[in-house]
Amino acid sequence: MREVAIVSAGMTPFGELWQSSLRDLFVQAAREALDAAQVKRVDGIYVGNMSGGQFVGQEHLGPLMADHLGMAGVPAVRVESACASGGVALRTAFLEVASGMSDLVLAVGVEKMNDGADVTNVLATAADQETEVYHGVTFPGLYAMIARAHMKTYGTTEEDLAAVAVKNHRHGKLNPKAQFRLEVTIEQVMNSSLVAAPLRLLHCSPVSDGAAALLLCPLERAMEFTDRPVKIRGSGFATAPFALADRADPAFLEAVNHSATRAYEMAGVGADDIDVAEVHDCFAIAELCVLEAMGFASPGGAGDLTRSGETTLGGQLPVNTSGGLKSKGHPVGATGIAQAAEIFEQLRGEAGERQVKNATIGLTQNMGGSGASSVVHIFERV
Amino acid sequence: MREVAIVSAGMTPFGELWQSSLRDLFVQAAREALDAAQVKRVDGIYVGNMSGGQFVGQEHLGPLMADHLGMAGVPAVRVESACASGGVALRTAFLEVASGMSDLVLAVGVEKMNDGADVTNVLATAADQETEVYHGVTFPGLYAMIARAHMKTYGTTEEDLAAVAVKNHRHGKLNPKAQFRLEVTIEQVMNSSLVAAPLRLLHCSPVSDGAAALLLCPLERAMEFTDRPVKIRGSGFATAPFALADRADPAFLEAVNHSATRAYEMAGVGADDIDVAEVHDCFAIAELCVLEAMGFASPGGAGDLTRSGETTLGGQLPVNTSGGLKSKGHPVGATGIAQAAEIFEQLRGEAGERQVKNATIGLTQNMGGSGASSVVHIFERV
Repeated sequence: MREVAIVSAGMTPFGELWQSSLRDLFVQAAREALDAAQVKRVDGIYVGNMSGGQFVGQEHLGPLMADHLGMAGVPAVRVESACASGGVALRTAFLEVASGMSDLVLAVGVEKMNDGADVTNVLATAADQETEVYHGVTFPGLYAMIARAHMKTYGTTEEDLAAVAVKNHRHGKLNPKAQFRLEVTIEQVMNSSLVAAPLRLLHCSPVSDGAAALLLCPLERAMEFTDRPVKIRGSGFATAPFALADRADPAFLEAVNHSATRAYEMAGVGADDIDVAEVHDCFAIAELCVLEAMGFASPGGAGDLTRSGETTLGGQLPVNTSGGLKSKGHPVGATGIAQAAEIFEQLRGEAGERQVKNATIGLTQNMGGSGASSVVHIFERV
Repeated sequence: MREVAIVSAGMTPFGELWQSSLRDLFVQAAREALDAAQVKRVDGIYVGNMSGGQFVGQEHLGPLMADHLGMAGVPAVRVESACASGGVALRTAFLEVASGMSDLVLAVGVEKMNDGADVTNVLATAADQETEVYHGVTFPGLYAMIARAHMKTYGTTEEDLAAVAVKNHRHGKLNPKAQFRLEVTIEQVMNSSLVAAPLRLLHCSPVSDGAAALLLCPLERAMEFTDRPVKIRGSGFATAPFALADRADPAFLEAVNHSATRAYEMAGVGADDIDVAEVHDCFAIAELCVLEAMGFASPGGAGDLTRSGETTLGGQLPVNTSGGLKSKGHPVGATGIAQAAEIFEQLRGEAGERQVKNATIGLTQNMGGSGASSVVHIFERV
């Protein structure tokens, strides 16, 4: 396999973007990445998108987006793994370049959720229709059950959950593209309205529109497009039993564990080598479970780690410096690419007020459903 | 890139399969392919599916299907390019093996269309919502416009269109897995009810449920799994302007032309070298346009070619020996894989009454929307 680098990134602001359609968002992010690298045409495009069909009545996004980008003709395909669609788009783009099939490949994640669709029910189609959704459960309920299990096993508290939201909003306030650029306090989180006990409104990521893009090429060509490429050192992808009830321990995200293990092995690094990480905090409990499943914290130890400040900017391992899904926003198909765009900026030293000093190796973890799919990438400054 | 082979195939019957769910169909086809190769676990799964979300309320098919196949944990992702989703799943699986990332990879196409969904409108989400669907056009109308353009430019007749349906039903009658195992006459086609003039009911592929599966591995390992592997010699994928009105000539399918050119180049063969082909006859006019765009017929010459019998079993280039989408059925996400399963059988000499004598090199062409995406594969008996 060839070595692969990211040479540019683009991203729309995330938020309720009523003036922008799905295709507008795609083009805006992709154009930003192309312009940064001064590239006019690519060899292939992967579009990460969860549900253009249900959200805005539009499938077949590959050729649609290639056309609107002024590249009709270019191979372009959509990949989907629910909220991990962006991470999977990055992985398939990586494989296409690594295989030698193509040199310049765009990976773009996009989702338009604020357009009248019944968002909670559309998102629920990422859960098991037959054994979960049919009986009335949606994602806040599924993650609430994960939180209950974690609390029961490890004594995790509502304060631990709140600390995740407080940290991520602190980071997001520094991100010009974040949906909610404001800090929240432990008390505000604890007093926000219940969504699905024990999860409250401020434990939950918002409904967002947005897109993000990355331009990939063989490492050996990267210097043609930028003087500061970022190498993709590892890519791990795994699945888990689909329905939450089918997992041995609902608080242990085995797909996250396996995808991280594969990425660490491929990269030849361990959790201790990571300088900055973006992880999937769709609900506050998810960030705690992910940190434990990836070896950043001991089982049950992520709450303490978060409250200690070690995952805040300035700590040992800053997590979700972008604001995470919680504060930056979560246009589901865009999230995995936006995570990598943040790490790309961090490793190039371009993250401004959010910059992690001397960041050399970064990681992204992007998850689908209640953890049935997970994709992890490890990046290094060249 | 490593050389890649197909070592086994599986396929459900196509039809109105009211007793089988989306996941049942997937497992049935995948299990048939796995059992044929005596394989228990694979390294990766690609699921070709156009719209599980809209048809049956289920997205996130990668981990769902891996789990129901007894392979929870295995990387599994869905790819979508409307009715070309199956062909694209084959291509991404091919790239994953070619890259060296994985050895054993399943490519499975599946669609469950007969389950209460408003099929014509769901399919229309593969067209341009803003410039086509919003104004009321659906796919029969789009292909009717393509037919009108072809008739105007080349003098193509309704009899030419009917000849495609007659041929494909003749072939499909010989296929135990076809949805409609019956012959039709020119007169029956010409007298069937108008759907969108000039297209009549018997010019149109049906609404179908079904799944098909292929098991891929590096060519150098193929003999571990079968004594008759089929090598993938070429893979070409291209897009075109998305909306029909944006194309210079609606009767010229440029994505088909470009995807074929790329596949021919990669395989080092030309149209004359192909012994048997499966092409995308969603409507009768599509088969004519495809044959011309791929160089099997001169522009405007596909009608004569079809009526001459050269594309019928026993002719110079048998096309759609499976019965094609018209007679075999068209569960949209499954079609591209089912086409390759037919060629796999043909090149192994296992096609029974449909066998093309001495078939050595075969081709599949699978198309999305009104031709905005097309994927072509070229296969060779090892």
